[in-house]
Amino acid sequence: MKLVTYLYDGSQHIGVINRSGKITDISDIVKTNDMTVLIERFDEVKSTLKLCSESDDASAVAIDAVTLLAPLPATRRNIFCVGKNYYAHAEEFGNSGYDSSAAAGNVPTRPIIFSKPSTSISGPGNAIDTSLDPHDTVDYEAELAVVLGKKGRLAQGEDPMSFVFGYTLVNDVTSRHLQKQHSQWLLGKGIDGFCPMGPVLVTADEFGDPGDQILSCHVNGELRQQATLADLIFKVPQLITTLGQSITLLPGDVIATGTPAGVGLGFTPPRYLKKGDNVTVSMNEIGQLTNPVI
Amino acid sequence: MKLVTYLYDGSQHIGVINRSGKITDISDIVKTNDMTVLIERFDEVKSTLKLCSESDDASAVAIDAVTLLAPLPATRRNIFCVGKNYYAHAEEFGNSGYDSSAAAGNVPTRPIIFSKPSTSISGPGNAIDTSLDPHDTVDYEAELAVVLGKKGRLAQGEDPMSFVFGYTLVNDVTSRHLQKQHSQWLLGKGIDGFCPMGPVLVTADEFGDPGDQILSCHVNGELRQQATLADLIFKVPQLITTLGQSITLLPGDVIATGTPAGVGLGFTPPRYLKKGDNVTVSMNEIGQLTNPVI
Repeated sequence: MKLVTYLYDGSQHIGVINRSGKITDISDIVKTNDMTVLIERFDEVKSTLKLCSESDDASAVAIDAVTLLAPLPATRRNIFCVGKNYYAHAEEFGNSGYDSSAAAGNVPTRPIIFSKPSTSISGPGNAIDTSLDPHDTVDYEAELAVVLGKKGRLAQGEDPMSFVFGYTLVNDVTSRHLQKQHSQWLLGKGIDGFCPMGPVLVTADEFGDPGDQILSCHVNGELRQQATLADLIFKVPQLITTLGQSITLLPGDVIATGTPAGVGLGFTPPRYLKKGDNVTVSMNEIGQLTNPVI
Repeated sequence: MKLVTYLYDGSQHIGVINRSGKITDISDIVKTNDMTVLIERFDEVKSTLKLCSESDDASAVAIDAVTLLAPLPATRRNIFCVGKNYYAHAEEFGNSGYDSSAAAGNVPTRPIIFSKPSTSISGPGNAIDTSLDPHDTVDYEAELAVVLGKKGRLAQGEDPMSFVFGYTLVNDVTSRHLQKQHSQWLLGKGIDGFCPMGPVLVTADEFGDPGDQILSCHVNGELRQQATLADLIFKVPQLITTLGQSITLLPGDVIATGTPAGVGLGFTPPRYLKKGDNVTVSMNEIGQLTNPVI
């Protein structure tokens, strides 16, 4: 099932993409327009939503007729993010001179976890504002994001994948200068609008094995990043286990799993995002997340 | 005004400490038991609450008769935290071998900002569970926390202190092993129950100049940390400016301002918290925040 949050007729709705490729509004069915609340109540409404997704409702609204928002436009806490989680990127970033985690070496032995505040989230088409980085070092990072559906800490022997609700994409946009200058990464990565997310949230049953998916990033149509998720150093179950051993996980939590090689910083000289660029993160099952740079 | 969140008769309330030292319940007046909502609506109810705080209401409930919770038991996003923000502590931590931000040197040139998830927050008297750190390296960090009351980014020329709603205390409890092992600090500092907060939230008008306050930490009655807030490397206005330049601040945001020298790691050998200990963070205007270690 592919779920969306969108603006239509001036108000926020949540919907499901049906067989005709249109959006069936499910806000009335689940009595909320908040995706996090839907995730909490998913077991109750799952079969009804499944029918909606399998219908061919001609009265549904066309995707072009709405404004897609991030599937989770206002998470209840910061997005968990993973740093240096593809081998080739760990190398390129570790050698860049911008890696304030350098003490840990180029390939981390444990997941590097930091966070992006909810106010950094934006939707497909929203602008990435380079004026918020006074040093003009704004970089892209295409990432698969895992959305969790269950509350609790991971119990001994529990399957970490049982916490997964679904998947979406994020662009972990970063001010390289602030990332380095402030040592811990929240400031360089937490800037308003520096976390484009979307375009859809695909439920786990439909997404299949993350290892089969190909993640890409294009800037103005030029391929910059491409990797299969099989290249992740720490894979999805291990990330959930690392967090869930000591932190209570919540429905609607988002874990951005890290970015492959090919970021702007990896070029000599660096190819940072500049005004007028368009950056697109994509993956077969999820679609394309494009944002203009202003 | 001193505000509290508490359990009484099985449900959560918010209240104000009145002149008799008892708690006047204000949940009905502000029509919420959520401190963040109160902060959002504060301008509407301020004068009424002032009257409550100045009353000598004998029918109010005694503090001993309730269970105090953290003033903000469930923040809407992670707590912003500042690392290495007192000179002597920056030195002791930088030399400890546990400082994964070592690339930045012992005294940071810019604020080091990381976050603790809302699920780490606990109240006065709640246990710090050492079993959640498999390496037995649980350490205390007494800190003043600033609570914000206004939404927005800091505009050019705007007074950063106009964002301050009030002040409370936190204990930024840390697994030193996980803090080092994972390079970025979220995992070592984000463990469930590793952010005791309270006991009260003092509004800015009553708190006065943070530089006049003395922050202390005692373990089993032994003084371990003591400093005036004048010793902060980056002071409250500068911290708000650093964050608010690029991140939209929200009512109910919490900024933990960093800890002075004297943490367990600073001793040779380190004096980590162990089962049976009691750790107390205190400050004249806010009171004592005591938590048992299990």
